[in-house]
Amino acid sequence: MTPDYVALKPHWTVGDALAHIRQFGSDSETLNMLYVTAKGGKLIDDLRMRELLLVSPETRIEELMDDQFVALEATQDQEEAVSAFRRLDRTALPVTDTGGILVGIVTFDDVLDVAEEEATEDFHKLGGVEAFDEPYLHLSIPELVRKRAVWLVMLFIGEMLTATAMGFFQHEISKAVVLALFIPLIISSGGNSGSQAATLVTRAMALGEVRLRDWWRVMRRELLAGLSLGVILGAVGFLRITVWALAFDSYGPHWPLIAATIFLSLIGVVLWGSLAGSLLPIALKRMGADPASSSAPFIATIVDVTGIVIFFMVAAMLLTGTLL
Amino acid sequence: MTPDYVALKPHWTVGDALAHIRQFGSDSETLNMLYVTAKGGKLIDDLRMRELLLVSPETRIEELMDDQFVALEATQDQEEAVSAFRRLDRTALPVTDTGGILVGIVTFDDVLDVAEEEATEDFHKLGGVEAFDEPYLHLSIPELVRKRAVWLVMLFIGEMLTATAMGFFQHEISKAVVLALFIPLIISSGGNSGSQAATLVTRAMALGEVRLRDWWRVMRRELLAGLSLGVILGAVGFLRITVWALAFDSYGPHWPLIAATIFLSLIGVVLWGSLAGSLLPIALKRMGADPASSSAPFIATIVDVTGIVIFFMVAAMLLTGTLL
Repeated sequence: MTPDYVALKPHWTVGDALAHIRQFGSDSETLNMLYVTAKGGKLIDDLRMRELLLVSPETRIEELMDDQFVALEATQDQEEAVSAFRRLDRTALPVTDTGGILVGIVTFDDVLDVAEEEATEDFHKLGGVEAFDEPYLHLSIPELVRKRAVWLVMLFIGEMLTATAMGFFQHEISKAVVLALFIPLIISSGGNSGSQAATLVTRAMALGEVRLRDWWRVMRRELLAGLSLGVILGAVGFLRITVWALAFDSYGPHWPLIAATIFLSLIGVVLWGSLAGSLLPIALKRMGADPASSSAPFIATIVDVTGIVIFFMVAAMLLTGTLL
Repeated sequence: MTPDYVALKPHWTVGDALAHIRQFGSDSETLNMLYVTAKGGKLIDDLRMRELLLVSPETRIEELMDDQFVALEATQDQEEAVSAFRRLDRTALPVTDTGGILVGIVTFDDVLDVAEEEATEDFHKLGGVEAFDEPYLHLSIPELVRKRAVWLVMLFIGEMLTATAMGFFQHEISKAVVLALFIPLIISSGGNSGSQAATLVTRAMALGEVRLRDWWRVMRRELLAGLSLGVILGAVGFLRITVWALAFDSYGPHWPLIAATIFLSLIGVVLWGSLAGSLLPIALKRMGADPASSSAPFIATIVDVTGIVIFFMVAAMLLTGTLL
């Protein structure tokens, strides 16, 4: 924000205003927008310079006024300022205190910088890195490691639960090693669909397209989309096993059961990934946290653990008595 | 771009210019920037309106001219326009044809929209989704599924290689089921470090902080950072196994060898993930593709397959004769 702006009085003529600008305008950050103030500095209108330039110099300022103006309040945060600029297509906006007294202006170049910074911050969070203030190549290696290690170690500790979950199914794995082969495939599909959903919802929330009260619409969409995507991936997985079984006899006599296990597990895991990925950013925002913290790696970690459980539960249902 | 702008002639006075603007300026998209053209429409200078407003009306336009101006060429792409605005803090920039003839102007509000759109596109790609033109909630479910299925199926087919890779080590898994327990942990650590590196480098390239010729600096940084991060995660993994072995006797008598396998595998996988994640966006850009296509899920898929191979190679080295 800058306190350098041009304030006009309603009873002046345009000629007076231009003379005033010629004398006092050189410090003003912008001459594109001019502000009309009443006694005491209360903001009563904004005028574009072009309105003054397109009328005769004898016109009075009050004739140009429409008493319609948009102002930011000094207490609003940066993101609101960015979205006001986006909505209003202005090169500058006035800032008032809570009493409506004009205290300064914000210009668009400040806002472009803020918008870029915030996009970068969201990017980094989405990729599972603490936000950077400095360009990548300027950061020292120890700093680079520190910024990344915090998240990586947290994700690693979360991901340790996969070893615990797998431990519960150790017996099943030793009886049917073939199940272990598909674990990376199953859990990564859940992670991928989850990170897609999280990315879409996080960005849509940042742009104001999705709000908290839309959670029900988001959930309904992701239920349908997740189910469809699960069926598609499940079908591809089923086909893969069928082809390998018939061509190379890779999976023994019970391959149709294994194929069915993969098919149903993928539906469950992709559906769960889509729901978790889309609803977590909304839940984070609801709790006052930053939705962008629900990064792709974070979602993947959650979905990995639950994916293992879903997979082995489906396997127990379908394979007990044959492979298990 | 708009063809509506105000062009002045060098021999006019400021008073002439203001009269010209009063008469013809009402169609112009902006009156903040004025352009001085020679005969034939060749752009010879740009002036800020404020320069005219702060001097006496008798001043000649040519006295204000400094013959310094920045113009976009009509053939430049949108991203270059955005970065020119970012660098120059202008509200509008002139556009010339290749002969230097002024053909129109671009104003900042167009640019803010373009910058937002491009950030959204990069976001979506990074999350492994085809770029959307419409807000998330407006897209029909079939369209939403289609946009996501393409990438998901491609990733799924790539990830099938993990089943193939695991197949090669089926014998090892059946001899030492304990190894299977750690596979999700190992490969996700590679994927996470890879998606961190890809995010940082992709964003840095979008902001112009990292260019193609910096690949060597990036690689050197990621070698060091990846090694450090690998040692950190490896140490945490080693500790986890040691504690579980001593407290619950989870991993049998050879637990120190298993712990060492996890430690060394994590170093290898995290190092490889950081290198692949950081260099792939640069390689994609070098080949003329969009670096943002090297999404977190794409990197994770590549790193998953290689992670399995690294893990079992380390296991074969350390465990042959005991567990294997």
